[in-house]
Amino acid sequence: MQQQGLIPEEGETHSSTVTSSDVNGTAVYSPAGDHLGDIDHLVIDKKSGNIAYAVMAFGGFLGMGADHHPIPWKKLRYENRLGGYVTDITKAQLEAEPTRPDDWRDNRDWATQNYGYYGVNPYWN
Amino acid sequence: MQQQGLIPEEGETHSSTVTSSDVNGTAVYSPAGDHLGDIDHLVIDKKSGNIAYAVMAFGGFLGMGADHHPIPWKKLRYENRLGGYVTDITKAQLEAEPTRPDDWRDNRDWATQNYGYYGVNPYWN
Repeated sequence: MQQQGLIPEEGETHSSTVTSSDVNGTAVYSPAGDHLGDIDHLVIDKKSGNIAYAVMAFGGFLGMGADHHPIPWKKLRYENRLGGYVTDITKAQLEAEPTRPDDWRDNRDWATQNYGYYGVNPYWN
Repeated sequence: MQQQGLIPEEGETHSSTVTSSDVNGTAVYSPAGDHLGDIDHLVIDKKSGNIAYAVMAFGGFLGMGADHHPIPWKKLRYENRLGGYVTDITKAQLEAEPTRPDDWRDNRDWATQNYGYYGVNPYWN
């Protein structure tokens, strides 16, 4: 059995848990196993303690550098086999996502739009 | 209104959200406002996507260096006024917590003990 200290070693992919430090930079794949991008960071709702969004970095598919998109955390499923997350969100969906206001992190109306767009039940109801 | 980019600036304490990067190192206070310690990192359950534990670093109160304790995430409440988390867990409780096996991060039996000890309903039932 693998020893697990309190300060985990990087890349403990066989664990049923992952740390907030290790999740940043984790790869995200399509259901077919194509590498879509990486998790830049998570956004946590202070009041409820829920993880609201994973902000994904998708590389230059619009002719620019990495493009960042907050997607509902529940759209990601960890796959031990791949050592990363799988999502069924497509690049076309990301490109057509609802316009993001500057205060998106605190904007419940936009959260409702975003969760609705990606077909995820809100955690706040 | 404060502008919020996709890559947040450090220390956006007035936001209703916090990032996975910023939460590490955030101070934890007693209900009386005494500084108890800091969040070292969070432990996230891969399957459900829930935050299982906050691993707290409490400074040398047993005559040693920082002591690390995983506590149920729900025991922490964010307080904008303090710019940190508040918990009603006491040092005495931490000192008497159930013995932690090496595989604690993957051990549901120990999770049940830990959540029971701190009086928090499990997220996995």
